[in-house]
Amino acid sequence: MITKAYAALTAKDPLAPFQFERREVRPNDVQVEIMYCGVCHSDIHQVRDEWGESIYPMVPGHEIVGRVIKTGKDVKKFKAGDIAGVGVMIDSCRKCKNCRQQMEQYCVEDMTGTYNGMERDGVTIAQGGYSSQIVTDERYVYHISSRLDLKAVAPLLCAGITTYSPLRYAGVTKGMKVGVVGLGGLGHMGVKFAVSFGAEVTLISTSPSKQKDAERLGAHKFLLSTDEKQMKGSDSYFDVVLNTISANHDYEKYLNLLDLNGKMLVVGLPAEDPRTRPFALIKNRRSITGSMIGGTKETQEMLDYCAEKNIVADIELIPIGQINEAYERMIRNDVRYRFVIDMSTL
Amino acid sequence: MITKAYAALTAKDPLAPFQFERREVRPNDVQVEIMYCGVCHSDIHQVRDEWGESIYPMVPGHEIVGRVIKTGKDVKKFKAGDIAGVGVMIDSCRKCKNCRQQMEQYCVEDMTGTYNGMERDGVTIAQGGYSSQIVTDERYVYHISSRLDLKAVAPLLCAGITTYSPLRYAGVTKGMKVGVVGLGGLGHMGVKFAVSFGAEVTLISTSPSKQKDAERLGAHKFLLSTDEKQMKGSDSYFDVVLNTISANHDYEKYLNLLDLNGKMLVVGLPAEDPRTRPFALIKNRRSITGSMIGGTKETQEMLDYCAEKNIVADIELIPIGQINEAYERMIRNDVRYRFVIDMSTL
Repeated sequence: MITKAYAALTAKDPLAPFQFERREVRPNDVQVEIMYCGVCHSDIHQVRDEWGESIYPMVPGHEIVGRVIKTGKDVKKFKAGDIAGVGVMIDSCRKCKNCRQQMEQYCVEDMTGTYNGMERDGVTIAQGGYSSQIVTDERYVYHISSRLDLKAVAPLLCAGITTYSPLRYAGVTKGMKVGVVGLGGLGHMGVKFAVSFGAEVTLISTSPSKQKDAERLGAHKFLLSTDEKQMKGSDSYFDVVLNTISANHDYEKYLNLLDLNGKMLVVGLPAEDPRTRPFALIKNRRSITGSMIGGTKETQEMLDYCAEKNIVADIELIPIGQINEAYERMIRNDVRYRFVIDMSTL
Repeated sequence: MITKAYAALTAKDPLAPFQFERREVRPNDVQVEIMYCGVCHSDIHQVRDEWGESIYPMVPGHEIVGRVIKTGKDVKKFKAGDIAGVGVMIDSCRKCKNCRQQMEQYCVEDMTGTYNGMERDGVTIAQGGYSSQIVTDERYVYHISSRLDLKAVAPLLCAGITTYSPLRYAGVTKGMKVGVVGLGGLGHMGVKFAVSFGAEVTLISTSPSKQKDAERLGAHKFLLSTDEKQMKGSDSYFDVVLNTISANHDYEKYLNLLDLNGKMLVVGLPAEDPRTRPFALIKNRRSITGSMIGGTKETQEMLDYCAEKNIVADIELIPIGQINEAYERMIRNDVRYRFVIDMSTL
């Protein structure tokens, strides 16, 4: 089926109107008319081939919210009219030990990303959510409560689950001291989740101007990471530090903030490999743990949790025609805290 | 009391005969006549001021086994004639939350090392086990079973507890797949402990010549880390990797070996901070965890466990006069796997 979209044709081109063919609905597929698509920093990395091996033409977008318009004959979870989401992953092998426990993001044969990769047929380029509709196996489609502000739900599909999952894995709960490093798309969701789990939350940032926003988002404290005295004063203070920084940096500075058995959760992906000071690791028996989005079970759990607690992202809605300008503003950190494209403007 | 010893007077000097004053036994002190002292690689680092801030004159040595010759009037755990051990730590604040749970190695005010530091009176230089006797508060002295080969027990006080503690913390047990990187003083104890806990143990080394020894120590498999094909074949294989490397290296290569939720335990302290690839961390939700020796409770537990299982180090006994030559051989990796000084030769 012909699908309208915005795509990058090369790493140098701006995004521009594009058309491509999506498959017809198969027995287990759900067809979703896309209402909103969040704009993730990884869209820029991949459009501009900053991680290497990008595939063009590329329709980015993996924070997708829309309405089900058609379901295959074997689909059980969805019916036409349902509000549905698609995230960072649209397929996986479904047979390996990790897929069997619905942690498909760690599929032994590697998950299939929503865009910038080949589908598992080996011939079709997967294309993302800067488009009018998407057709996906129902396993990788999520229910979304229509009670939530749907445009602000879109970023939950990547920024939300990427921060929810490691905070849950680290057992963040009432009374724990959690630091969130960086207040961007990921960081602002990290603050909201950690606060909702009952933790004492500190926003850690290089920018004093973020303090007000951090408080508005529910953070209890603010730590200016460029102030050595403040940092020294928080030495060995935290149980968990969620590190969302995607700029180049070393880990020691944030490791030093961790108390006995403290955990630094890494979700940012700097281009240059950070250095880790072993002396900072062995002190207090500290850990660094990586985490990648979440599996299908946990993603649905997170969306249900957000519906229950009325948690959504802070967003700025843009028409698709402003996408290239939005990329420039994101690079300047000029967004609070996620752009979402109104796909009706396509 | 006048104490005979070997000491370094500066970072450049070889170790040479030396005399110094130890305190008289105080009410809670145990005086131990030293029979054996293990030679740890960190002795060389500190004697040569390779970690900075070394204090001279320095009597190294923190793998001490001997016989109690005197006890203070309030000592409860020991009596004259007991076999006793002293390890890496001789004091701590005893009041902080970590000391209160007998994890004094993570003392909030920093533990007092056995040598190359000031005692908590602030004026006495702590001096180690290359000496005829040591006087220490009984809290930091351990019981040792006289059933064990005492000269081979000495390295348990550092190399032993340094590997035992993180393997226990990571929950290594029957059926788990454990890789041990590096077969030196730490690595050979790591292999013995992991095998005794029931794990399937693989020795990972750059040196094919270590394969035979690894098997003799109980390892089930051998992985040559310079062979890319072998390393690729073990991608995502292990639950735990104990990284004992003290030479400069990056973490990615060993992280890649870890399966879902796999843990790399870091106990080696390279001079240069290793790089960590975030993509390798987020894949499989891998962790890096540091660990430093063990607390007084766990050290006694480890020594009791070794007595029960008849676990000791593989050592080469030397007279104190050969200590400088032994350092040179250690730097060339020419020791299997720990030198122990026969202190009766002092």
